[in-house]
Amino acid sequence: MNIALDMMGGDYAPLETIKGVQLFLSENKDDVTITLIGDENKLNPLLKEYSIITEKINIVHASEVIEMREHPTKALKEKQQSSISIGFHLLAASRTDAFISAGNTGAMMVGALYSIKAITGVARPAIGAYIPRDDGKLSLLVDVGLNADCKPENLSQFALLGSLFSEYILNFKNPRVALINVGEEEGKGNILCQAAYPLLKENERIHFIGNVEGRDLLMDKAEVYVCDGYTGNIILKFAESIYDLVQKRKINDEYFNRFNFEMYGGVPVLGVNKPVIIGHGISTAGAFNNMILMAKKMIEQDFIEKIKSNFV
Amino acid sequence: MNIALDMMGGDYAPLETIKGVQLFLSENKDDVTITLIGDENKLNPLLKEYSIITEKINIVHASEVIEMREHPTKALKEKQQSSISIGFHLLAASRTDAFISAGNTGAMMVGALYSIKAITGVARPAIGAYIPRDDGKLSLLVDVGLNADCKPENLSQFALLGSLFSEYILNFKNPRVALINVGEEEGKGNILCQAAYPLLKENERIHFIGNVEGRDLLMDKAEVYVCDGYTGNIILKFAESIYDLVQKRKINDEYFNRFNFEMYGGVPVLGVNKPVIIGHGISTAGAFNNMILMAKKMIEQDFIEKIKSNFV
Repeated sequence: MNIALDMMGGDYAPLETIKGVQLFLSENKDDVTITLIGDENKLNPLLKEYSIITEKINIVHASEVIEMREHPTKALKEKQQSSISIGFHLLAASRTDAFISAGNTGAMMVGALYSIKAITGVARPAIGAYIPRDDGKLSLLVDVGLNADCKPENLSQFALLGSLFSEYILNFKNPRVALINVGEEEGKGNILCQAAYPLLKENERIHFIGNVEGRDLLMDKAEVYVCDGYTGNIILKFAESIYDLVQKRKINDEYFNRFNFEMYGGVPVLGVNKPVIIGHGISTAGAFNNMILMAKKMIEQDFIEKIKSNFV
Repeated sequence: MNIALDMMGGDYAPLETIKGVQLFLSENKDDVTITLIGDENKLNPLLKEYSIITEKINIVHASEVIEMREHPTKALKEKQQSSISIGFHLLAASRTDAFISAGNTGAMMVGALYSIKAITGVARPAIGAYIPRDDGKLSLLVDVGLNADCKPENLSQFALLGSLFSEYILNFKNPRVALINVGEEEGKGNILCQAAYPLLKENERIHFIGNVEGRDLLMDKAEVYVCDGYTGNIILKFAESIYDLVQKRKINDEYFNRFNFEMYGGVPVLGVNKPVIIGHGISTAGAFNNMILMAKKMIEQDFIEKIKSNFV
């Protein structure tokens, strides 16, 4: 397999991306080639410095970088030689099997949607994020930002996408799916939730357990939590801020340390035709390593085919 | 002033409500009469046991109780002799100046809306909740559950209601108001936020500072955070669950201890014609004391008149 990594994406690139690659290669002796996309002049000295085994990598030069604050569609159009543009080009051409970047999030989303495109039958791809659970396991929150406004059918599809990820990547058998709402009973909530509930209940491909409230999200209630991307994004960023505060308050607690979202690397774009993983801007070596591992597992599990067969 | 308290509302009533009254009276020598609404047969022995000064109180017998799980409108209609029904009756008739209950939340909301009614000009009353801030102060989150679906105009009104509460009850001069969104720039977010932003910007009665993200809610970014009631409810309950986890993990931290929402007592219904405060079901003495203090301040500040004069 061939996993492509944007070496220029993220606040600490390319140093931390290089260190992430080194970390991955030191632990993985399997048949994985990593395609490093970025400025050769910057990458070559670092590859030497960190003694990266050259037969495990493949460098593709990118002369441009899409900066964090650039407008996604405009930048993708104008910067064809940027690491993100080249990454999607290689992935769309099947020259690589997955693409990872901690660069401009908007450009990654736009690239995934317009270059890799949604799987036939998936109306709206979504982004899933890990939620550290009270019992040591990980739940998945979908959508965390790709779709600020959703239709009820979208939530039902997010449930299935999340459920498949939970099953094949997080190894939960028959993962429980819950709808995030303001009360437990059917009929509660906003118009979207009221309309989504019966669709989720009727969806035979998922194990729907009903509504859950904000207080349930960190508990062992469900493996997949579904909501619109506006709500999910606010929950995720609020949870991330808890970790910052825990750090600031010098609290060292096994559970709250798991709110360090860098531990999980990045978030998968669910429902597009290839594995695409978006990293946090502040990603360091460990996060890049984890993202490569996530991409590897998605390829090994033939995850995209699993989705396709569920959306025919 | 005369503040009415539902003595039968909450999981630990009437014992904790009595203890809350005792606490309040021990610290407040002012001219406050508390109207205790509940079952005389249960209250009288407790009043004796806790040596409550009888000239400071006024007992109104209520032979019924609306239970936590009852359907709000149905219960209010059928149980006219319940403590909540009587409480709203007394308030509507101006025989009391404020009403507090930790009983059935739905019944409290319905009672406030249909018995006390919205202030002229307020399209949708809302519920405000305290958010413990990093800098030791309190921000206000509006709405946390009265309006699952909102129109842009509603959010602009929530902003003003919250702003007035922040100014007159929490003593912030010129409180900053922010819209909870998925990105900072104008134009970001779901359709509701996109449409609410210009209304907030044009609203000359508030100090609007723009969008904030989920990660900003616990920081010193704004005094008032505005969103629809679905989102606000999920944020609030998620935050409440953080305190439960902090307790469970035996973390004793000054800041995270402030996530104990009982410290603040209850949440005010903003935009109705009288002060109405809804307590948490698990309220204990300290929470009841704090709710009485909040009601007292709302009356002292002539808070309802402040709202009325801003909505003419």
